[in-house]
Amino acid sequence: MKKLNVGMIGGGFMGKAHALAYAGMPMFFWPAPAIPHRHTVVDVTDELAKNAAARLGFDNYSSDWRAVVENPEIDIIDIVTPNDSHAEIAIAAAKAGKHIISEKPLARNAAEAKLMLDAVRAAGVKHMVAFNYRRTPAVALAKKYIEEGRIGKILNFRGTYLQDWSADPNSPLSWRFQKKIAGSGALGDIGTHVVDFARYLVGEISDVMAVAQTWIPERPLQTGGADKLGTVKGDNEAPKGAVDVDDEFITLVKFANGAIGSIEATRNAWGRNNFLTFEIHGEKGSLYFNYERRDELKVSFADDPADSRGFRTVYTGPAHPYGEGLWPIPALGIGYGETKIIETYDFLKSIASDTSVSPDFADGYQIAVIADAILESAEKGVWVKAAAELAEVK
Amino acid sequence: MKKLNVGMIGGGFMGKAHALAYAGMPMFFWPAPAIPHRHTVVDVTDELAKNAAARLGFDNYSSDWRAVVENPEIDIIDIVTPNDSHAEIAIAAAKAGKHIISEKPLARNAAEAKLMLDAVRAAGVKHMVAFNYRRTPAVALAKKYIEEGRIGKILNFRGTYLQDWSADPNSPLSWRFQKKIAGSGALGDIGTHVVDFARYLVGEISDVMAVAQTWIPERPLQTGGADKLGTVKGDNEAPKGAVDVDDEFITLVKFANGAIGSIEATRNAWGRNNFLTFEIHGEKGSLYFNYERRDELKVSFADDPADSRGFRTVYTGPAHPYGEGLWPIPALGIGYGETKIIETYDFLKSIASDTSVSPDFADGYQIAVIADAILESAEKGVWVKAAAELAEVK
Amino acid sequence: MKKLNVGMIGGGFMGKAHALAYAGMPMFFWPAPAIPHRHTVVDVTDELAKNAAARLGFDNYSSDWRAVVENPEIDIIDIVTPNDSHAEIAIAAAKAGKHIISEKPLARNAAEAKLMLDAVRAAGVKHMVAFNYRRTPAVALAKKYIEEGRIGKILNFRGTYLQDWSADPNSPLSWRFQKKIAGSGALGDIGTHVVDFARYLVGEISDVMAVAQTWIPERPLQTGGADKLGTVKGDNEAPKGAVDVDDEFITLVKFANGAIGSIEATRNAWGRNNFLTFEIHGEKGSLYFNYERRDELKVSFADDPADSRGFRTVYTGPAHPYGEGLWPIPALGIGYGETKIIETYDFLKSIASDTSVSPDFADGYQIAVIADAILESAEKGVWVKAAAELAEVK
Amino acid sequence: MKKLNVGMIGGGFMGKAHALAYAGMPMFFWPAPAIPHRHTVVDVTDELAKNAAARLGFDNYSSDWRAVVENPEIDIIDIVTPNDSHAEIAIAAAKAGKHIISEKPLARNAAEAKLMLDAVRAAGVKHMVAFNYRRTPAVALAKKYIEEGRIGKILNFRGTYLQDWSADPNSPLSWRFQKKIAGSGALGDIGTHVVDFARYLVGEISDVMAVAQTWIPERPLQTGGADKLGTVKGDNEAPKGAVDVDDEFITLVKFANGAIGSIEATRNAWGRNNFLTFEIHGEKGSLYFNYERRDELKVSFADDPADSRGFRTVYTGPAHPYGEGLWPIPALGIGYGETKIIETYDFLKSIASDTSVSPDFADGYQIAVIADAILESAEKGVWVKAAAELAEVK
Repeated sequence: MKKLNVGMIGGGFMGKAHALAYAGMPMFFWPAPAIPHRHTVVDVTDELAKNAAARLGFDNYSSDWRAVVENPEIDIIDIVTPNDSHAEIAIAAAKAGKHIISEKPLARNAAEAKLMLDAVRAAGVKHMVAFNYRRTPAVALAKKYIEEGRIGKILNFRGTYLQDWSADPNSPLSWRFQKKIAGSGALGDIGTHVVDFARYLVGEISDVMAVAQTWIPERPLQTGGADKLGTVKGDNEAPKGAVDVDDEFITLVKFANGAIGSIEATRNAWGRNNFLTFEIHGEKGSLYFNYERRDELKVSFADDPADSRGFRTVYTGPAHPYGEGLWPIPALGIGYGETKIIETYDFLKSIASDTSVSPDFADGYQIAVIADAILESAEKGVWVKAAAELAEVK
Repeated sequence: MKKLNVGMIGGGFMGKAHALAYAGMPMFFWPAPAIPHRHTVVDVTDELAKNAAARLGFDNYSSDWRAVVENPEIDIIDIVTPNDSHAEIAIAAAKAGKHIISEKPLARNAAEAKLMLDAVRAAGVKHMVAFNYRRTPAVALAKKYIEEGRIGKILNFRGTYLQDWSADPNSPLSWRFQKKIAGSGALGDIGTHVVDFARYLVGEISDVMAVAQTWIPERPLQTGGADKLGTVKGDNEAPKGAVDVDDEFITLVKFANGAIGSIEATRNAWGRNNFLTFEIHGEKGSLYFNYERRDELKVSFADDPADSRGFRTVYTGPAHPYGEGLWPIPALGIGYGETKIIETYDFLKSIASDTSVSPDFADGYQIAVIADAILESAEKGVWVKAAAELAEVK
Repeated sequence: MKKLNVGMIGGGFMGKAHALAYAGMPMFFWPAPAIPHRHTVVDVTDELAKNAAARLGFDNYSSDWRAVVENPEIDIIDIVTPNDSHAEIAIAAAKAGKHIISEKPLARNAAEAKLMLDAVRAAGVKHMVAFNYRRTPAVALAKKYIEEGRIGKILNFRGTYLQDWSADPNSPLSWRFQKKIAGSGALGDIGTHVVDFARYLVGEISDVMAVAQTWIPERPLQTGGADKLGTVKGDNEAPKGAVDVDDEFITLVKFANGAIGSIEATRNAWGRNNFLTFEIHGEKGSLYFNYERRDELKVSFADDPADSRGFRTVYTGPAHPYGEGLWPIPALGIGYGETKIIETYDFLKSIASDTSVSPDFADGYQIAVIADAILESAEKGVWVKAAAELAEVK
Repeated sequence: MKKLNVGMIGGGFMGKAHALAYAGMPMFFWPAPAIPHRHTVVDVTDELAKNAAARLGFDNYSSDWRAVVENPEIDIIDIVTPNDSHAEIAIAAAKAGKHIISEKPLARNAAEAKLMLDAVRAAGVKHMVAFNYRRTPAVALAKKYIEEGRIGKILNFRGTYLQDWSADPNSPLSWRFQKKIAGSGALGDIGTHVVDFARYLVGEISDVMAVAQTWIPERPLQTGGADKLGTVKGDNEAPKGAVDVDDEFITLVKFANGAIGSIEATRNAWGRNNFLTFEIHGEKGSLYFNYERRDELKVSFADDPADSRGFRTVYTGPAHPYGEGLWPIPALGIGYGETKIIETYDFLKSIASDTSVSPDFADGYQIAVIADAILESAEKGVWVKAAAELAEVK
């Protein structure tokens, strides 16, 4: 069985998730398409990197990502850094002939994403963007129903991603609130996951019409080196810095196939934690999913008898997508880890079998085009075409 | 205790609901502000009207609504007819000095609604539009929380009204699908309830930006005199007639106070029955309501301790709005009937105490302005001001 | 259409519910089997009775129930008094040849219930016990599925009735906490509703094995004449009286047909309001119902395809039991009132068509036998036969 | 950082879960109390063991568990085999001075469990039983609330564990249906998890009174070597073998502290997958948990204001037990893997810090005593003392 050496750039929360996936994937999907080997982890200082290697089970560590990208032993570069470094690392990795998986959003904007797409295409390497939520088995089951025609032609999509970790004005000014690092706010951070759902399940988005707001214009500056998610209380008395990204947006969407819908994301919704949902109405049925209860997909079929029609709550397990590799009983439990394990499985399969995987950098680029269109629409108050370059992309 | 004689124009499903409310209101709210007496019911033929009187407990019946409107014994005219007759009846009733309650939407469009508003104002009678859902105790509780500042300044509102009774292309061409009778489709029929929620709970809507669709362009013509709701299967082989109203719309909304949001309504959502919901995010908390589970209001407070913060599911009962008059234990059960009983109570209180009641014809007119703006926006693809005449209205 | 004159003994909360049902029933079920006419209401004083008549729409009032029972104009005696007077009134009414509907539980114990059953049988009148919850359309739908064999042979039944209105030790010593009036506590008050579900849906209960507890041994005495439900805060400083009934019981049950199960009821479950639920497992499917969300029945069918099997949430409406008479769209909303309207409909139908109705006094007696057996089992710690007299009863 | 070598006996589904936990634990809890090293895995044949080692990331493999138990390099023996081998392996491992974690139930019966307890006590090694579900953060949060007195003195506990993977009569005769291997059926397999919850959250169970049933008396024999969970369809035509364990049981329970309750488990509940729930009523509040929605704990506090009292849905995250080590946002997602990672963390902490951990073999033994009492009670129809040996155990 082929072993593929991974160089992972970043050792934070997302690095933990990816490391767990590398360790666990072959345990779930066996025979594995290839064995991912945790070769080298990179963090900003040697000390942090050394700690990350011990913690995450990598053989080596480094504070020099360029050296790791150039290391001929490395097969895969895994980018789990803040958004502003994705492009530079990915382009270098592509030039070095590495397969690349990058955290989402692919880049801070479409222009940057396009450079990345051009680079991986030129290099002929495999590429993936880590919109992991679509790999929740219940979401994959929704896709299966749709492909089998079980809810008919799709009319409507409503997607939301609501959180509350930054609803407190004293939650610190993480990089996620800074445009120069993040590109955008709730839009890039979480809204793009919903855009990914919409494109995956319904089809290409052609037009958007949005509003966006920054509810909390400044937040306490962080002290200490580490970036904090807002769940850590900020210092009330600390000096503050400006937030220059959106806290919330809502957009109407038109799909190329005629469906309509809306997408909403906010990090200021008290009581919502990871409320990533979609509801889809088709001519023959409906679907509903809420990641907070991610083992479940709700589906209603029009052709059920009138006296027993209603949403079915299906718990995913062995009879559903990826079920052969996961747990033997439904609701034994899909966690964040399992979504990343499946993602890793599909990425390694694409490398081992020399096939493409979705979502790839072309998807990531198209999502960036849509995100840029959402911001433009919110600013100008007009419908904006979101798929202008689509033909060229695919 | 004063007795007020009711002349009810219409003997269909909604007439049933109102008749039950007239009979039941004093049983719940005692001492009643006044006793509504079922004096005369009107239907399109004498036979139908006679039947309605027997069934609904009216002393008299008639097929001549004008005569009833002119009858000096009558104090209140209750309009429960299709939308195209609201204006004519209401204007005549106002001229005859009757207090008026009209089913929603107030009229087919804003121009018609304005004539009705002018008429009741000129006559100095009491007037109400029957947006009964806001009288669900859980919705009134949401209003109470908001007024007490318990969720802080409102940032966002999302409202939906999803049904599936006309999702089947063979459901018959009820008047609800005909613009000349209904004015609009899902918008006027159910979407206006959500607009009423939005204005009641958040404040005035200033701008809208919408999409709208007619998914099923023609439906089987009805046979027989009676109008059928779509839950009755239409005849597959019957000749068909055109649908010229919206099956679905989604609109972005901006509120005058700076909040943003979206409103969506459709009658083509398989599995949704009376899915009238709102979610509101404020600076200090959030609210969620779903009429399908109408005894419940969900509320999350920001200032709950971090280890026990989350949406509370509050079942309304004696400790909540209207609780003194309803059932003695929460979840004993609010049905459609109770919402109409509360509505009747508030309307009669306004007459007995010579005060205004909300929503009145000014609200009904403003909602019609918003509905017209939604259709205009959907057609033109631009933001449309929805509150142009507001200052004049209030 | 025949008119039946009702003499209602009692003018409290339950009298309100019944009065609404008499007024509303013909509005929903038309042609009505007969028209119930609110002839005379009885309360403990003339003043209370006069008030009740005005409030509840009765033509006459009285403080002398015996006179009303004897009144030849009266066709139906409706007993909505505390439990200790059910037997005396019912036996007198039977002797006077009146049809009788009695609130639940039928009596304080089986011996008393047996006298009532003997009396109505001797008189040949119609009789019903007001276990109204089984008339919730979703519960009637469960019965329909079971009768159609759609969940197969039943294996297991779990029923609960959980409330919290008396969980506060300062809630007053209502008659519901006094054995001489109530007979038993949570058992008779709410537990018997679950026993009614169990017998209705599964079959006869043959054996019980129970535990019971009185968690709060004394409560503040009530001041003033009116009995208060515990949701009214008692007076902390008031003198206290002893509670001599159960606050809670749990019983294992065996059914004559081999199924097993458990029943639990308490009024000390903080956060539960009217949590009347059942879950039933059959060889071919399962059912779940929670009255707090009473428009819904959940059903899972074994023969659904493995990839889309799961509980369906069915909202009752026109396609379900009683749907022809209720509201035209599912989830428009069943409240407590509607359950009583259906009950009245079925009772009047039994009179008009000279057929029996269920649950009748034989059911009420058998439920009392089971309740007595539960208390005996809880006291002695042994299994107790609950259906000894069943053959004689039916 | 100390490394502890693990010898894992068993390479099936549960071995996968444990292997993931060994790999992942230090990624989550850092600094880790010790690093668990996957030294050797044992399976029934060399080929299976070799495959398991490759798949699960062990350095070595063996088909001779005795040799592994004796291997001086091994620090921890992890028993993930069917129930009938737990005792023999554990006793041998104890004699060899190894720390031991055993899958649940600890043994087939109390007598066997007692031998295991005696062995680990004599050897002075650390021991744990893998009742992992109590390590779900939401369950640990329930424990925290209880310990802080936030729901007051506990009155009632109701626990269920409902599954449907063997509801189909053609699901194969896994070892889980054979008394000689499993000891008991639903009771040992899943019911003991509920018993663990009850003891963990409420206190010691003193008496039980149960019913038990075998609904499907025979099932198709398995073909091929591997044991199959019932979700794999059995062969209709295959020869059948007898089931000699319970498919379902329900038991009343009395706790030593005066609380009462019930516990129910079945694998024949169509539509229930991993419906492991508890509801607890205390004098000051209530708790509800359902593992199918395991990120949530519902809690109702009596002292909330009357107008906003109701169950709160708390999503566990950084502000809750184990939150410092898990994911940074609530509802990012706890899966089965995370529960095992936490279990491993606590077990290694007990070794590293030379402290005891719960549940240990004493707990496992006491649970076996209770399980035996449940079977005895079901057979004899009488209350059975379940804690006779408790004083000796603790």
